[in-house]
Amino acid sequence: MSEDDHRDGETRLGFDPADQADASVSFIGHIRSDWSKGNCPRNIGQSRQQGGGNARIELLDGFALGLAGMTVGQAIWVVTWMDAAPRDLIVQRPGHTSGPRGVFRLRSPARPNPVAMSAVRITSLDLDAGVIGIDATDAYDGTPIVDIKPWIEAVDIPPAD
Amino acid sequence: MSEDDHRDGETRLGFDPADQADASVSFIGHIRSDWSKGNCPRNIGQSRQQGGGNARIELLDGFALGLAGMTVGQAIWVVTWMDAAPRDLIVQRPGHTSGPRGVFRLRSPARPNPVAMSAVRITSLDLDAGVIGIDATDAYDGTPIVDIKPWIEAVDIPPAD
Repeated sequence: MSEDDHRDGETRLGFDPADQADASVSFIGHIRSDWSKGNCPRNIGQSRQQGGGNARIELLDGFALGLAGMTVGQAIWVVTWMDAAPRDLIVQRPGHTSGPRGVFRLRSPARPNPVAMSAVRITSLDLDAGVIGIDATDAYDGTPIVDIKPWIEAVDIPPAD
Repeated sequence: MSEDDHRDGETRLGFDPADQADASVSFIGHIRSDWSKGNCPRNIGQSRQQGGGNARIELLDGFALGLAGMTVGQAIWVVTWMDAAPRDLIVQRPGHTSGPRGVFRLRSPARPNPVAMSAVRITSLDLDAGVIGIDATDAYDGTPIVDIKPWIEAVDIPPAD
């Protein structure tokens, strides 16, 4: 570890996962929102308190067919690729925690594979255009999307402790 | 669409997302389980009924540090890469549905970016070796893992309809 790592309680992997391609991601669309670097809420709860950010999903050509059977009001996962974040911070010290924490203990966008998931509700649906209104997002306008899935209570809530 | 597509109610994209690399995934580890092609349960609920499959996560070198702060009993997401599935089936007809459905309406492993998420509990933890016991999996032994995150009730349950 360098002195810098030592000082701020963060640790880097020593390699960049972005340089070790085991598989490829192909973006299926992008988030549209009112949020950008200067005004983005810290999390989706804060986004909802601020009205949700005029959030929607715009799919790329060919993917709209994949929405067949979806309905307004349905709960879904939106899986985004947080491509602005470093991928090698294996131990981090976020402002809201008392000390350093492993990346897998955090929902930080800075992670080996920067996949983020949001549980949201569909507020509008244009099956032809491939545009889905969602109740909120905490992602910048233009954030790439890698997947959309139905939220299912029986599988998305862990078993009791 | 070919006649084949028409007959079985499935539709392909006309291109393979695997050939359109917008970003790269770097595996952080693998699932270890009793499951393989011949005996794998259909979903994680069925896996739990069968004892969970002796499920654990083995991280690759360097990633164990990312577990700092995690505890036995904690609920986590395990994000896997279902790399055996085709990526171009935009409309599918699974056995359990009454007709064709868009891929984004399904939790099928066959999807443009084959990311699967499971909500599980940690049953054991070896922070030095980077091995996490989990209560169950429905993934084959050897399935690659792309991320681990804490499950957080406030963000992982969608708002009321």
